[in-house]
Amino acid sequence: MDLTVALDAMGGDHGPSVVVPAAFRVLDEQPELTLILVGDKSILEREIARQARPPSNRISVVHASQQVRMDELPSQALRNKKDSSMRVAIDLVKRGEAHACVSAGNTGALMATARFVLKTLPGIDRPAIIAALPSVTGHTHVLDLGANVDSTPEQLFQFAVMGSVLVSAVDNIPRPSVGLLNIGQEEIKGNESVKEAAQLLAASDLHYVGFVEGDDIYKGRANVVVCDGFVGNVALKSSEGVASMIGHFIRSEFRRTLWSRVVGLIALPVLRMIRLRIDPREYNGASFVGLRGIVIKSHGGADVVAFSRAIREACEEIRKNVPERISQHLESVLATAEAV
Amino acid sequence: MDLTVALDAMGGDHGPSVVVPAAFRVLDEQPELTLILVGDKSILEREIARQARPPSNRISVVHASQQVRMDELPSQALRNKKDSSMRVAIDLVKRGEAHACVSAGNTGALMATARFVLKTLPGIDRPAIIAALPSVTGHTHVLDLGANVDSTPEQLFQFAVMGSVLVSAVDNIPRPSVGLLNIGQEEIKGNESVKEAAQLLAASDLHYVGFVEGDDIYKGRANVVVCDGFVGNVALKSSEGVASMIGHFIRSEFRRTLWSRVVGLIALPVLRMIRLRIDPREYNGASFVGLRGIVIKSHGGADVVAFSRAIREACEEIRKNVPERISQHLESVLATAEAV
Repeated sequence: MDLTVALDAMGGDHGPSVVVPAAFRVLDEQPELTLILVGDKSILEREIARQARPPSNRISVVHASQQVRMDELPSQALRNKKDSSMRVAIDLVKRGEAHACVSAGNTGALMATARFVLKTLPGIDRPAIIAALPSVTGHTHVLDLGANVDSTPEQLFQFAVMGSVLVSAVDNIPRPSVGLLNIGQEEIKGNESVKEAAQLLAASDLHYVGFVEGDDIYKGRANVVVCDGFVGNVALKSSEGVASMIGHFIRSEFRRTLWSRVVGLIALPVLRMIRLRIDPREYNGASFVGLRGIVIKSHGGADVVAFSRAIREACEEIRKNVPERISQHLESVLATAEAV
Repeated sequence: MDLTVALDAMGGDHGPSVVVPAAFRVLDEQPELTLILVGDKSILEREIARQARPPSNRISVVHASQQVRMDELPSQALRNKKDSSMRVAIDLVKRGEAHACVSAGNTGALMATARFVLKTLPGIDRPAIIAALPSVTGHTHVLDLGANVDSTPEQLFQFAVMGSVLVSAVDNIPRPSVGLLNIGQEEIKGNESVKEAAQLLAASDLHYVGFVEGDDIYKGRANVVVCDGFVGNVALKSSEGVASMIGHFIRSEFRRTLWSRVVGLIALPVLRMIRLRIDPREYNGASFVGLRGIVIKSHGGADVVAFSRAIREACEEIRKNVPERISQHLESVLATAEAV
């Protein structure tokens, strides 16, 4: 199976200096893969030359004269940046010249552009952002991580369907467990949207396991955790904040005295193993689900390791044909829900 | 200044076996303090005898024949448990026989009972739950942590006032910085409640520093972070979940091989220092603010160290006269906001 992925090579904090080496790294791993680098042709060709690789017909450049800034308003990017690297990469997906696109650019602009160009799947009101977060038992997919600020019960239900289908495809779990994020596990708790969404989920044929709380994401109590984008984004950012604070405390305590520095050196291999298990780079690559096409958002500050992970996520979703599967399952699940 | 604190001695997962030793521990530290243990008299007298202390007129027992279960509905506790240890402790505050009460019992029942018995302060629609969370620069107070599921802009504004006054009092910061939790720092982001609350805050005389994101809690970007209770509770629980997962990974990596166990032993003093900096026991004791009285909620699973911390929080809030100050500041701040 041939896979073609368009990369917004100008996006993110580092642009081509990260995207180009990451592209070559993943090309080496995946023989079926072809990559299209989208961006300023002369800059990209210079960056490709710097890699000192033999010429390959599996990597090509498509010129784009503009670039979306990280702080640009989505509406302005959509209106004024029709030849941006981001837009051209998404256009390639729309025209069927690429199966997916990956960008480390401005999240809001990427979502607005992807929605405008690719459109949502039938039955989906709004796309959502989903990503895997680490858990003690492996990982948990959480959505929405910030595409929407308020969600109706029906939209939360659609998120659940999309999450369930994506996890079933990429993790090979026939019926992933789905939890609804709430502030207690009792039926009486939560806001109205969450309570109504719970009823829709209980009546569906999804493997709904009830309300879960914030800590359950990391306990792995469900394969998929559903919430609105405001809550999901706060949960994600708070989690990143705690992890980074603990990292800071670990570094500062091991640096406090000469003796603790020595201990730190001795403990280094173990500390590295711990770090690896929560390395955010290994979780880079959030998917925009609910669109007629695959769009993967890399963290803006991604390095080569992290951006490579986002490209691999795109490959996996192409192989598993995620948008098509969501569309199919949504039809059947919605039919069941309406019949109840 | 004499301080009298009523303790719901039957509340929490451990009841008197934690509350009684914690009571004696804090009595030893604070010579002005008098404690009233509320609960089953015979059980409490037995637990007091087990401490093998000389008799003291600074500790007394008030009998309560009932107990609120951890899973009891707040409405049922309020209706059927009028002689519960929780209710009697709050009644003591209401009658002026105690300056504050501390309970590790059912949060919902405690809030419902405290609101019913003590009433809210003038100008406050709804009480909120506030607690300090660790940050790289010290700590950050966050509210609401789960008393309310949906909040109007005016209520978010009231939370900001309450948080600012409490932090100003207990941390001796004249004008604490206040941030509003959002999913981006740009003006255009967030839901309607948050956007409107931002305008109220910007027009007030609070030291409002704008939108903050989840990770800013732990970066210490503001002294007070304001959000609705759904979002705050998810942020808190997610944070606890990440911290506990990292703790799990640290323990399991240091136990993996014989060599890593040896390394773990060598590193133990440093690991203990790291643990201390994020020890949830040192942050135990959330305040119910907005009531005509001081009510401190201890974590249900609190041990003696953690419950002692909650009693100390009560003492501090009595010394600083927090409810009175909130009431005063609210009048002046609301007057300013209305004048704008």
